[in-house]
Amino acid sequence: MNLNNLNRDTIVAVSTPHGMGGIAVVRVSGPDALTAVEKRWNGARLDTMQSHTAHLGQLLDSQGELLDEVVLTLYRAPHSFTGEDVVEIACHGSVWIQRQLMNTLIDAGCRAATGGEFTQRAFANGKMDLSQAEAIADVIASGSRASHRVAMNQMRGAFGRELSVLRSQLLQFVSLIELELDFSEEDVSFADRSKLIDLATDIHSVITRLADSFQAGNAIKNGLPVAIVGASNAGKSTLLNALLRDDKALVSDIAGTTRDVIEDTMVLGGVQFRFIDTAGIRESVDVIENMGIERSFQKMDEAQLVLWVIDATAPLAEVDRFVPMIAEHCHDKQLIAVVNKTDVADGEPVAEALHGLLPEGAVIAPISAKSAADVERLEQLIVERAMLPEVDSEALIVTNARHYEALVRAGEAIERAIEGLQGGVSGDFVSQDIRECMHYLGEITGEITTDEILGEIFSHFCIGK
Amino acid sequence: MNLNNLNRDTIVAVSTPHGMGGIAVVRVSGPDALTAVEKRWNGARLDTMQSHTAHLGQLLDSQGELLDEVVLTLYRAPHSFTGEDVVEIACHGSVWIQRQLMNTLIDAGCRAATGGEFTQRAFANGKMDLSQAEAIADVIASGSRASHRVAMNQMRGAFGRELSVLRSQLLQFVSLIELELDFSEEDVSFADRSKLIDLATDIHSVITRLADSFQAGNAIKNGLPVAIVGASNAGKSTLLNALLRDDKALVSDIAGTTRDVIEDTMVLGGVQFRFIDTAGIRESVDVIENMGIERSFQKMDEAQLVLWVIDATAPLAEVDRFVPMIAEHCHDKQLIAVVNKTDVADGEPVAEALHGLLPEGAVIAPISAKSAADVERLEQLIVERAMLPEVDSEALIVTNARHYEALVRAGEAIERAIEGLQGGVSGDFVSQDIRECMHYLGEITGEITTDEILGEIFSHFCIGK
Repeated sequence: MNLNNLNRDTIVAVSTPHGMGGIAVVRVSGPDALTAVEKRWNGARLDTMQSHTAHLGQLLDSQGELLDEVVLTLYRAPHSFTGEDVVEIACHGSVWIQRQLMNTLIDAGCRAATGGEFTQRAFANGKMDLSQAEAIADVIASGSRASHRVAMNQMRGAFGRELSVLRSQLLQFVSLIELELDFSEEDVSFADRSKLIDLATDIHSVITRLADSFQAGNAIKNGLPVAIVGASNAGKSTLLNALLRDDKALVSDIAGTTRDVIEDTMVLGGVQFRFIDTAGIRESVDVIENMGIERSFQKMDEAQLVLWVIDATAPLAEVDRFVPMIAEHCHDKQLIAVVNKTDVADGEPVAEALHGLLPEGAVIAPISAKSAADVERLEQLIVERAMLPEVDSEALIVTNARHYEALVRAGEAIERAIEGLQGGVSGDFVSQDIRECMHYLGEITGEITTDEILGEIFSHFCIGK
Repeated sequence: MNLNNLNRDTIVAVSTPHGMGGIAVVRVSGPDALTAVEKRWNGARLDTMQSHTAHLGQLLDSQGELLDEVVLTLYRAPHSFTGEDVVEIACHGSVWIQRQLMNTLIDAGCRAATGGEFTQRAFANGKMDLSQAEAIADVIASGSRASHRVAMNQMRGAFGRELSVLRSQLLQFVSLIELELDFSEEDVSFADRSKLIDLATDIHSVITRLADSFQAGNAIKNGLPVAIVGASNAGKSTLLNALLRDDKALVSDIAGTTRDVIEDTMVLGGVQFRFIDTAGIRESVDVIENMGIERSFQKMDEAQLVLWVIDATAPLAEVDRFVPMIAEHCHDKQLIAVVNKTDVADGEPVAEALHGLLPEGAVIAPISAKSAADVERLEQLIVERAMLPEVDSEALIVTNARHYEALVRAGEAIERAIEGLQGGVSGDFVSQDIRECMHYLGEITGEITTDEILGEIFSHFCIGK
């Protein structure tokens, strides 16, 4: 995608999800949107239509035959999503009609849009900054309250505004230093070094806070990785099913939505949890076969949270056998020891035995996977132990790896500037570091960008957005 | 679905295809559409909005938190699809947002719509007759030019208008007879019997023509059943792949559309062909194992068109062996004997040998499955042999089994009326037959209907339409 082509031609795509449905929406955007659609339109004249009005009419194929009765909505530039003239055609949701509608509009002079091209045009036309554009894909992909809210905050420009404050502080900063350089022969000093250091330190701390939010942000966006481990008869599957139950029920409210997508992920307390496939562990921990166990525990290392399911009816020696392995692999993780089957056995002796054996910070949760109340308490515990920040409508959390990398580099640059100021190095060098910091922040919002970066970003979008 | 509930409450559904996409559309219809949406809407006031206008704003969840930035389009009763107040909300196509939007609108007083409920309301509010309402589902499901055009004609009311002409003729007819009955004591005769017979005969022929179109209509709608049979090395799969090639290429133009749906169907000359699974035949015809062959030929009996693929390199005795089986099973079908592998062998001797052995009407097509030109000729031959009527924008073809049954019964009734008139039976009986004929025609357009029939019809619709 070459930025130079943007806005020069008119693009078309099906914007609604793929497949058959009641209605589908085909979106056309560009300088020739009206003239291209007019060629295939039988209804009120497009050039006399007001912006933001909907009109019933007929869409014809290239031979002038009726293709469908549609509702056409017009958005005139610049008051549209892309900032260009946009025509949205709501047709019957037949796959055949959608395909023919695309064909006839391409035949009328439009080009099939690439992934994210409408959003890219919105960015190019100044309707949003790059971080907002990227957030649109996140909003569409988000599957939990937390990930949705983080993406929505970013889409509404909160992140961009925060970065813009930083950039204007940095600009003021660099101006002072560069002014000094201009008058260097006169040996004047406009900038109070200690005040500059304070300002740079403040900026550094904001950048660091943002960068540090990425681990949580990544977990919120992609799901917090959880491993369920334990002996094969401890009730791991029963527990997983008990946990999934509520969520599955919610999803099946609307037929055919994401049944296959949720598979092994679930949303608890508005946060998505992603279950790592520990089939290996499930199969091999009850056999003393070290190779298998080791391989399984390696997979477990991806988890941030581990649920160790223990059979309360099993002999204590069985439980003890696991402790060293758990201790070794969970020292840097949140661990919940789930003492299961309290409906048929007393969990107390096991819980008692575990105290002192578990890594610090681990908690013990006696449950019966069959009892709803216990499972609910465990769910609360899982959400607590996930240690994710509260996501409110103001929360600024970085979820994008590209942003994280840019923030890390911006942080390194401002750190060098601080060191330079402290070490009394020449203003040239400090100025260069500050400009580098600004450069990286500008990459996030898109003030500084390349066709390559844009191509990479928008290639991950779905077509039609 | 009870008709009495119609229009009393306000329904909501996702109208776009299931899953994730750029945008999704949630549709709300009913007397409280505006007040329900207003509770969750942050933007221009709905009660002051003009019909057919689109507005950018925010949709909130039940806690008043921002759910999404959306475009809301208002259609005021009766100028909407359903004839009621309709609000369409175009949101970001996240599955999570779609679900939450449904939830929050249900919470605000709407009810989740059942399949086809919007269309059912359009019917109940007199926006369309029942045959038009049914055609909407056909338009959405249609996958070829022919099936699309037949459904589109019906959706636009062509069938209903034809039936309405018939019904008004019948009404005039019955009025004359019943007038006679009122004056029966005076022994007057308002109706000229021979003219009545002519009129009834005309009506009968129209009904018969419509009913007779059903076989072709069914093939157009569901795909014309085709069997490819022949010895296992004759090149059946190669031929199928060669035929499918063009169509598959077309479909893959738009990613993720109907790849799995087309499987073994293809569109040639705008008509859909449906390949019957003749795996049994493929496997067993080269083995003289009668049971297997018999079972396979039974499956083949479902076909309207048979492609018998013959290996031009095989000895003639091999080919001869098939002739009696083919003759037995294809006497009532269209048969194309495809002499394959003409690139490596002369097809003439086989073709020569086949003349006179094949059932009447069968054609011989020498091809090389590898050569594009031959395959194209074969495709033309298949389309010709399908013997389907030309479907133009005026074509009236019955594709719906319910309509077909009603037409058959209407035809039987008018036949009885004709016989009665010819036999000089009492006007009471003739009148009763005519009224029965009208009744069945009225069932098609929905002038006469029951909740049961309606429930059955609309249960086949997708939700959101």
